[in-house]
Amino acid sequence: FEERPGEEDLAARFAFWCEADKLKSVLRATPIADGSRPENTGEHSWHVMLYALTLGDLAAPQVDLALALRMLLLHDIVEVDAGDTPIHGAVDPAAQAAQARAELKAAHRLFGLLPRATATEFRATWDAFEAAQSPTAIFAKSIDRAQPVLHNLASDGGSWRTYDVTLAQLDTRVGDKIARGAPALWPFIRARVFPWFAAMGRA
Amino acid sequence: FEERPGEEDLAARFAFWCEADKLKSVLRATPIADGSRPENTGEHSWHVMLYALTLGDLAAPQVDLALALRMLLLHDIVEVDAGDTPIHGAVDPAAQAAQARAELKAAHRLFGLLPRATATEFRATWDAFEAAQSPTAIFAKSIDRAQPVLHNLASDGGSWRTYDVTLAQLDTRVGDKIARGAPALWPFIRARVFPWFAAMGRA
Ligand SMILES: [Ca+2]
Repeated sequence: FEERPGEEDLAARFAFWCEADKLKSVLRATPIADGSRPENTGEHSWHVMLYALTLGDLAAPQVDLALALRMLLLHDIVEVDAGDTPIHGAVDPAAQAAQARAELKAAHRLFGLLPRATATEFRATWDAFEAAQSPTAIFAKSIDRAQPVLHNLASDGGSWRTYDVTLAQLDTRVGDKIARGAPALWPFIRARVFPWFAAMGRA
Repeated sequence: FEERPGEEDLAARFAFWCEADKLKSVLRATPIADGSRPENTGEHSWHVMLYALTLGDLAAPQVDLALALRMLLLHDIVEVDAGDTPIHGAVDPAAQAAQARAELKAAHRLFGLLPRATATEFRATWDAFEAAQSPTAIFAKSIDRAQPVLHNLASDGGSWRTYDVTLAQLDTRVGDKIARGAPALWPFIRARVFPWFAAMGRA
């Protein structure tokens, strides 16, 4: 066992866990699969990790699956302060820039609650996910996009109804990103969602 | 990229993700940290992974932290069928045996939804966690015990009130297991919870 951390060090971690707990009260645009209520960001974070673990064979060989899981574990922590931004919500460049600033500020505050070494490591993981440049981040991002699609499908529309989403919009906003990180997954998903969009006159 | 999985293979994974989604509707005895509602098993699973990632330096050198995270990701999947068993609930050997049987049956059904190789791997991970023999499983179990304690503390008693828990009971049911997998963590937690039990005349 390593040298024992001090009381202050553990208290810092405790403060972080309590702040992170607030993700359970951040509601997303997507419902849980039975459509009964909105999904919260805490349970979403668990579910995308389950997707990722189940889809490791679809990732490019350079993908570090354990790192992808850590990215997904941490990817939405900033929503404690900055809230969730629905992917199909109105797109306004000024609002997007403000949101990006709010998320950076949140990352600084929330990871900054932790002891320095852990703060640095978690922040680097979050930054790498956000940058979406490494194969691992690109894979993790594709999983984060795929899960809500399957929830909307399972719940007869979900946030596609809320935001009047067309199949063309889904292709652009979501499909391209899923295909980038998990090429074999998108054709499967698209074939599954097509009938819903066709039936709604949105295909 | 590996050989493309077939439509049937991906449909099997989709069925598994949808079943797993039901963990978001399994309510635990412990509240979320602000005490406003019971925690569900989906968000609990995410939160214990966050604890584990933040406590890696407290684990024994033989602990595989990435495996501990996978164990915690999967550890409660069986609750989709078998429900949650509150640690401080009434202890009845016959009921415990029935619960263990129900969980085995659930593991068989739920992991069995997946393509064979993934099913085997997930089941082995779950079995190893349940066995609580390897250093990694012992560490993961200690984390799973620690998180509810800190929630009960944060919410002025939580399930300790529901079940009239004394400090001696907490030591036996929870403390010993936390100390086994994360020795440095338990003294910190015990010092934090002592004042609550003392004030309630339960110390
Ligand atoms: Ca998000």
